[in-house]
Amino acid sequence: MLRNSPIVVLDSGLGGLTVVRSLRKLLPAEDIVYFGDTARLPYGSKSPEVVRTFVSQIIRFLRPLDPKHVVIACNTATALALPEARAEFPELSVSGVVEPGARAGVDAAAADSAHISVIATEATVRSRAYEKAIARRDPGAVVTLTAAPLLVPIIEDGRDAACPLARLAVEQYLATAAKTEPDVLVLGCTHYPILRELIEATLSRLCGREVPVVDSADHCAQDVARRLAVSNLLRGPGGLEGTLRCWVTDDSPRFAKLASRFLGYSIPSPEWVSPDELTNGSPSPVQTLRRAI
Amino acid sequence: MLRNSPIVVLDSGLGGLTVVRSLRKLLPAEDIVYFGDTARLPYGSKSPEVVRTFVSQIIRFLRPLDPKHVVIACNTATALALPEARAEFPELSVSGVVEPGARAGVDAAAADSAHISVIATEATVRSRAYEKAIARRDPGAVVTLTAAPLLVPIIEDGRDAACPLARLAVEQYLATAAKTEPDVLVLGCTHYPILRELIEATLSRLCGREVPVVDSADHCAQDVARRLAVSNLLRGPGGLEGTLRCWVTDDSPRFAKLASRFLGYSIPSPEWVSPDELTNGSPSPVQTLRRAI
Repeated sequence: MLRNSPIVVLDSGLGGLTVVRSLRKLLPAEDIVYFGDTARLPYGSKSPEVVRTFVSQIIRFLRPLDPKHVVIACNTATALALPEARAEFPELSVSGVVEPGARAGVDAAAADSAHISVIATEATVRSRAYEKAIARRDPGAVVTLTAAPLLVPIIEDGRDAACPLARLAVEQYLATAAKTEPDVLVLGCTHYPILRELIEATLSRLCGREVPVVDSADHCAQDVARRLAVSNLLRGPGGLEGTLRCWVTDDSPRFAKLASRFLGYSIPSPEWVSPDELTNGSPSPVQTLRRAI
Repeated sequence: MLRNSPIVVLDSGLGGLTVVRSLRKLLPAEDIVYFGDTARLPYGSKSPEVVRTFVSQIIRFLRPLDPKHVVIACNTATALALPEARAEFPELSVSGVVEPGARAGVDAAAADSAHISVIATEATVRSRAYEKAIARRDPGAVVTLTAAPLLVPIIEDGRDAACPLARLAVEQYLATAAKTEPDVLVLGCTHYPILRELIEATLSRLCGREVPVVDSADHCAQDVARRLAVSNLLRGPGGLEGTLRCWVTDDSPRFAKLASRFLGYSIPSPEWVSPDELTNGSPSPVQTLRRAI
């Protein structure tokens, strides 16, 4: 495992780019390979077996890059597939976004036995991963989970806070969350920060007071930095600026267009890997990837 | 090709069941195998290359059943992959839903050079398949296409006409379609009939007059019946009632729950085929399928 190896960040689509943004700020010298499984998104309405299969295929495909770290930058994939990915690839360092999100929630609540509300995909809610992760940090915390299944399709459709449909969806989901009178709201999906201001304003209005809203991106990046530092794998400062390469399973023009909303800056068009190549076990995708990097 | 072979109906998810419902009514003696690619839905936001790969994998997987006919009961998959599927499987009889939908539109307009409006997924709109199919039947028709990308996620989420979010989405999309003052509206996606009454009421209100709304399901079933009759492959009446087996790539409990909305009656739980099995070329799925049928 070399210091110059890339960090791999994977997601069902665009949401994981919010983690890339935080990583870029914190670790500007690192090379990052982003993988968005855009041919098979969304993950949040799908079953544990299927999401585990997809995550396993992606890591197997990227394994020849010898990544120094793999971030599963999708809450659904973390909640359903992180232990399985660690068991299947024991030689790799793999982390997710649920623990950092839980930590962000507990830290922001700033009191023991806080009431922490989490909005997430259906699959993440069903997994109870957030309840378990929060209980490990604050056993007295009261956790309520609200599934918000349409927010990912709405965001991947390019709609923003100005869109009445996005506003109505946020209003519907937060009305449920607000009833529990939360001390803090955790955005349990890497897509949701795109609507953060709308979510903050709506929740505060519904609760009649300011309620902090947190997400896992910054905490996730800090977690990766800590892991790399412990293993002495951080690229030193003062070096070259790290590169960012994006791979997608569907070469939709939408990706490059929407990516700038998630990253805050434009990226070149991503490279395309056919979903067939992910599963057929031929050596060609590996060779393709090696040539390209 | 035997008279007792099944008819295969495939779709990205649940929408194709509206075609199954029409087939069941028209050809009650036929055995039907339904395949919903629920692990990788929706198709409507994805690229031609990816949708062609998915359709090819599904037909290759089901090929050992020797289907007497294959219906691509998804407008996106028909628009993007029908000619390719016919070229790849020349020994199979394959049809889609765009031609029947176009015919339904032209018939309902009941006048030459009608103004025909079509709502469909982004991918179907981009393909221009409806414009071409309508032009073949009525070269003077004026066709306008409106992409309605969020209707499939909303319907697959189980929302109906009573839901304010579904109503707002329909209102937004039809406001665009109504501006063109259509003589008829074609539902260019097999999911949309679930919201047919809401769509009819909203469009008539926006246009200030009754506008007929048609879909492809009944015309598609008539088209299949005609093809089977020509090939002398229809099962005679008075026989046993045909069977319906459902296969999905994600064994979501949602499938059986929502299927009854599309079919009008309940079905047993579907069988699960892993997306890995669709692509790895091992003989096991074929054996599984043969055993099960």
